[in-house]
Amino acid sequence: MAKPNATPMRVIEETPSYWRAVFDYPPFNVVDGDVFQALQDLLVRLETSETLRVVVFESALPDFYLSHFDLTGKLGNVMTGIGPSGLPVLMDTFVRLTKVPVVSLAKIRGCVRGVSSEFVLACDMRFASRENLKLGHPELGVGLHPGGGGTERLPHLVGRGRALEIVLSANDFDGDTAERYGYVNRSLPDAELDGFVDALARRIGSFDRPALGAAKHLVNEVSLLSADWLLAAFTSFGKALGWPAAQNRVKAVLERGLQSDTTFEKNWPEVLGDLGVPKQ
Amino acid sequence: MAKPNATPMRVIEETPSYWRAVFDYPPFNVVDGDVFQALQDLLVRLETSETLRVVVFESALPDFYLSHFDLTGKLGNVMTGIGPSGLPVLMDTFVRLTKVPVVSLAKIRGCVRGVSSEFVLACDMRFASRENLKLGHPELGVGLHPGGGGTERLPHLVGRGRALEIVLSANDFDGDTAERYGYVNRSLPDAELDGFVDALARRIGSFDRPALGAAKHLVNEVSLLSADWLLAAFTSFGKALGWPAAQNRVKAVLERGLQSDTTFEKNWPEVLGDLGVPKQ
Amino acid sequence: MAKPNATPMRVIEETPSYWRAVFDYPPFNVVDGDVFQALQDLLVRLETSETLRVVVFESALPDFYLSHFDLTGKLGNVMTGIGPSGLPVLMDTFVRLTKVPVVSLAKIRGCVRGVSSEFVLACDMRFASRENLKLGHPELGVGLHPGGGGTERLPHLVGRGRALEIVLSANDFDGDTAERYGYVNRSLPDAELDGFVDALARRIGSFDRPALGAAKHLVNEVSLLSADWLLAAFTSFGKALGWPAAQNRVKAVLERGLQSDTTFEKNWPEVLGDLGVPKQ
Repeated sequence: MAKPNATPMRVIEETPSYWRAVFDYPPFNVVDGDVFQALQDLLVRLETSETLRVVVFESALPDFYLSHFDLTGKLGNVMTGIGPSGLPVLMDTFVRLTKVPVVSLAKIRGCVRGVSSEFVLACDMRFASRENLKLGHPELGVGLHPGGGGTERLPHLVGRGRALEIVLSANDFDGDTAERYGYVNRSLPDAELDGFVDALARRIGSFDRPALGAAKHLVNEVSLLSADWLLAAFTSFGKALGWPAAQNRVKAVLERGLQSDTTFEKNWPEVLGDLGVPKQ
Repeated sequence: MAKPNATPMRVIEETPSYWRAVFDYPPFNVVDGDVFQALQDLLVRLETSETLRVVVFESALPDFYLSHFDLTGKLGNVMTGIGPSGLPVLMDTFVRLTKVPVVSLAKIRGCVRGVSSEFVLACDMRFASRENLKLGHPELGVGLHPGGGGTERLPHLVGRGRALEIVLSANDFDGDTAERYGYVNRSLPDAELDGFVDALARRIGSFDRPALGAAKHLVNEVSLLSADWLLAAFTSFGKALGWPAAQNRVKAVLERGLQSDTTFEKNWPEVLGDLGVPKQ
Repeated sequence: MAKPNATPMRVIEETPSYWRAVFDYPPFNVVDGDVFQALQDLLVRLETSETLRVVVFESALPDFYLSHFDLTGKLGNVMTGIGPSGLPVLMDTFVRLTKVPVVSLAKIRGCVRGVSSEFVLACDMRFASRENLKLGHPELGVGLHPGGGGTERLPHLVGRGRALEIVLSANDFDGDTAERYGYVNRSLPDAELDGFVDALARRIGSFDRPALGAAKHLVNEVSLLSADWLLAAFTSFGKALGWPAAQNRVKAVLERGLQSDTTFEKNWPEVLGDLGVPKQ
């Protein structure tokens, strides 16, 4: 049944109606150009399949869902290329995921930060492990800000106050808090998470495609922001990547162990308030 | 004090300021054309009363608030007639309820699904029994989608992710979950529900009408969507009613006992993922 | 370290990046023209400081954060003067606070009602004492309605149903309920509140100003309403202040002990449903 890919993400066709997309890109599932390419390839399949109703996004690594944007620069064409929607590849990936008439469920365990938070925010629903979740936006801590939809999607989901807390604190949010804030749909006991999401996916997989497509479209019409707002954040983020102060902070976290040391990779937002680099 | 009506809904004038509207339409309080006619008649009274401040909507049946849209077709002019606002009667009823300068409180026990969820979403506030609530949108499970405001009102209330879960899962939501999602204002222990809502209604009933009207109007201005969005969903729903796949699913749930068997009527969303009809 | 002011609010410069603004205006921290003047003076400093990143607003009085609008009429130019933004001073104060590129944290203990609720709603984040919070909008109970942003900011934060409950019930909300509704970011055990907010402020104070400013601006772009809506509410509130029925209710609560009797001041929303004045 499994159909492994030679990419950072394997697609398992559970049934013609229900697929699982499994991120498997050790050691940390860092989000680089190859991850976006795999998502772009999958999007074409989602957009053209005549049988698919639902896709579950999950990770093969117990402690990392998708960790964060690659800060060593292996971003491929993510910032500069243009996708089929006419938007930059990073934005194009998330925007098309929100609009495709296939239901996307993020089943989340482990670390999910920055652009990875923005990926799950672009999924239709988010279900997290209550005991095993570190979800957040650490960008401010490295002198940057979210650029892939976080500043746009969070306020509509959790309200302005909690959106500002998530973005400006650069802290991790655990399962209980993420559920209470509405950042995820639900946090479930880890032992129940797989069963809950699988049952939901099979149920949705049994429904009619025209009805699913129409319902998602109607909800989208009143809940998705115009791409103009997303583009403003993306453009601002692109500039911020060139700020010397941000580059100093990025250098500091890489030297401390980001993308190389497992313990640091799990916990790095903890030190962001005390990086020891000059602030701007 | 009670003033029983020969309609599906009795109106009890507790005081000149505070009325209770009691759905009493055994066996299941199914929402048909007569229920809408009773609501239309009440709306005229709400719009013209010079003393009324607040109305509580409740049910005389312990396990059914309003169960769901009549799926046997007894819809009267609900889909085809035009109400005083110029909108189709179904929409007109809900839109006028949101705008009338009388405060509407839904006091909810039992099953409240589909169009009945849309009725309580059009009320100003929703208070539910913690132990006795089955609230949701099963339309997807019968090949349809919400058409009376569910897809429009839910995202603004619970966020896009939870709105998609409610609509696309076609599942019931219990008192705890409905409160956590913000689908209802509060779920209260069943034994406290009547006292809480009665005290709130009497309190609001003691306030000045100009102040209540101005405050509700101001909140409405920034929280009600334009009728265009509601009309798009209504029109799409009207088309979906004619889909052969939807008609097959509706036939299947009627044959299994919907609108006839009490146990099935209470629990039917449970089987929607396994109806055994060909999917489209 | 402390730099006491001869105003209702002292500013303590903890570090060049992080200030605390302490309301200290016994006996009740009533919001009058002098409080707005102090906020206006502080706003100029926030807008022109080149080092500041974050300001915490707190109270020196254990049971009153800011109690409510002065109902004896000592409002200075709050309703009639025009601030630097071109808006009336009351609105100008709150609008500039939402837009200034300095992060504002409300650390809340005690009573916070009416215009004071609107002040904390204009702050970027709200953290409350779980055991010691009475937050709400009692305006309806004195024949008025919110006029400083409550009817505009609440629906986007807590949804239409809970916003209508808060505004139309004129009741107090405690720490648990305020957190559950999303009215505050979090309620924390009172013993942990100071430590939590101080750590967050120092963390934000360590980040780069351009990144903080850009992130807050991006969130604002999709979460702040146009001033037109705020102005409509302000204008309607100004008229309501002249309603005879409202003046009767205000007179009644002042006679019962508002702004003079500590016990009444703490608990006055309790009696608003039973004021014993003729209703309009």
